[in-house]
Amino acid sequence: MSIKLTLGADIGGTNTRIGVVSPDGEVICTETFSTSAYSEAELYADVMAQAAEAAMLQAAEMLGDAEIEWAGLGIGAPNGNFHSGAIEEPPNLNFKGITPLVALMEARLDLPRIALTNDANAAALGEHIYGAAQNFSDFIMITLGTGLGSGIFVNNQLVYGSNGFAGELGHMTVVPNGRYCGFNRRGSLENYCSATGIRRTFFEMLAQHGGTSALDHKTIAEITAKDIADAAIAGDAISVATMDFTGRMLGEALASIALVTSPAAFFLFGGPVQAGDILLEPTRLAFEQHLIPTYKGTIQIVESALPPGEAALLGAAALLG
Amino acid sequence: MSIKLTLGADIGGTNTRIGVVSPDGEVICTETFSTSAYSEAELYADVMAQAAEAAMLQAAEMLGDAEIEWAGLGIGAPNGNFHSGAIEEPPNLNFKGITPLVALMEARLDLPRIALTNDANAAALGEHIYGAAQNFSDFIMITLGTGLGSGIFVNNQLVYGSNGFAGELGHMTVVPNGRYCGFNRRGSLENYCSATGIRRTFFEMLAQHGGTSALDHKTIAEITAKDIADAAIAGDAISVATMDFTGRMLGEALASIALVTSPAAFFLFGGPVQAGDILLEPTRLAFEQHLIPTYKGTIQIVESALPPGEAALLGAAALLG
Repeated sequence: MSIKLTLGADIGGTNTRIGVVSPDGEVICTETFSTSAYSEAELYADVMAQAAEAAMLQAAEMLGDAEIEWAGLGIGAPNGNFHSGAIEEPPNLNFKGITPLVALMEARLDLPRIALTNDANAAALGEHIYGAAQNFSDFIMITLGTGLGSGIFVNNQLVYGSNGFAGELGHMTVVPNGRYCGFNRRGSLENYCSATGIRRTFFEMLAQHGGTSALDHKTIAEITAKDIADAAIAGDAISVATMDFTGRMLGEALASIALVTSPAAFFLFGGPVQAGDILLEPTRLAFEQHLIPTYKGTIQIVESALPPGEAALLGAAALLG
Repeated sequence: MSIKLTLGADIGGTNTRIGVVSPDGEVICTETFSTSAYSEAELYADVMAQAAEAAMLQAAEMLGDAEIEWAGLGIGAPNGNFHSGAIEEPPNLNFKGITPLVALMEARLDLPRIALTNDANAAALGEHIYGAAQNFSDFIMITLGTGLGSGIFVNNQLVYGSNGFAGELGHMTVVPNGRYCGFNRRGSLENYCSATGIRRTFFEMLAQHGGTSALDHKTIAEITAKDIADAAIAGDAISVATMDFTGRMLGEALASIALVTSPAAFFLFGGPVQAGDILLEPTRLAFEQHLIPTYKGTIQIVESALPPGEAALLGAAALLG
């Protein structure tokens, strides 16, 4: 009996997690090591190769007599470029400039295929192969975290675009001369619709509405998007207004984005999405309100079906799927 | 000797033009008939079939002894849906509801293939097969006219999306609570960047700056986007401000749109584009200014190379290319 297994690696700013994924999307075993401890790419690649070998060994032990066929290693990384196989100018990693990670790993591991993409594209692939988007040929995955990332499927293919970085929806301008972003830009989507955006909106609501909120006892530094979501669910007016504003901004933006590739659905993933209806109801309402007539009622907004803890790893493995 | 010819039909609100296109994109002969005179789709299809037969006969006569192989008929129509082969709820045609034009023509003409798409998609196909986009696998065609239309190529394929109507970029919101559009929507791109948008901006500039303009002697009804472009080129301050504002709005919008599919180029087509640098310089400037760092300097904004009078017809024929 032979079984085909895939390695997936999820590179985060703090830690890297590498794991073995079964054909039906089960994470069999994982290894975790520090990302931030290494600023030297060669050294980091050495450690990743060791972790990969360890994970493969562990999987082989767990599966006993089964003959394993290794499909390869898929890597999801911030600013990962599928075309070049490199991590390019990542703002939140210690590797500066361009790190040709696929080439570095090919020199260290004997696997049929090693590929890399950015984390949001990986999430879209994961949703397509293991999650709720399995029957969708045209959809858009939106990942809400510190920023807003996206992966776009058109004609059953992930869109990389001419520069390998298609789907940077978080940087689209939604409010001309709006909130200050990095890059000397203003008013981009992720400064409204993300964990960071939720915090900024909370402060705006404190300014707009005045009065008190359930989070008055917390320091500014302590307050998280999750605190605000929880307070909103518990009925705190400022927090409800915050989640409502966030949802409406997201819904209106998705109604514009839908006009580009006409997806059958948007899949939403990430911490803020776990707030549920308090975010998704205003999102869906504003979305339908702002769609043009020919589009109304035809596009779903759906929560991701990927297990939150494993999504990035599954997505990375899905690169080889 | 055998030559492969294609029929292209360009359905406008007033007239329909049907013509024969050679493999290298030359329009060999055309027939024109009224669109607006027919509100009955069956009758309109009868007339179109007659015009097609007449054009084919004329081409055969012109080519003398050459053996002609007919590839088929490509149709470009407002609100044309490639998937269904129907014109669906066109706001500016007399055919209301859904007109299954491909089926109607198949019943009348013996051709190997009949296909239909909307006019902006046709323009993108035309640019790809006969124009300046021949070596581009990822690009976006923008057509500026009464509205703003678009056709999007990803991975060397035209994007139709799940509903067949992808690329409705003119309806994207660029100014929240901005100018009133149809559909109870506000602030959409085509109300700023189109011939109509240029007129509206001209009135806004009259309001903002006051004073006189070179077009003071014209009635409101008379003033066209071309008048404003011409006056701008001649140095009229209000008109210069109008074209500058239009270009900056377009450039900023394209910088957001680029983030979705990461095209290698935007191709601009239509009346307002013929104004040249007075529109395109501020467009390119604002575009570069608003791009994120990884995108800067990598995407061209190019004028269409299609002959203005034949673009729609060539595009329609390109549907079969």
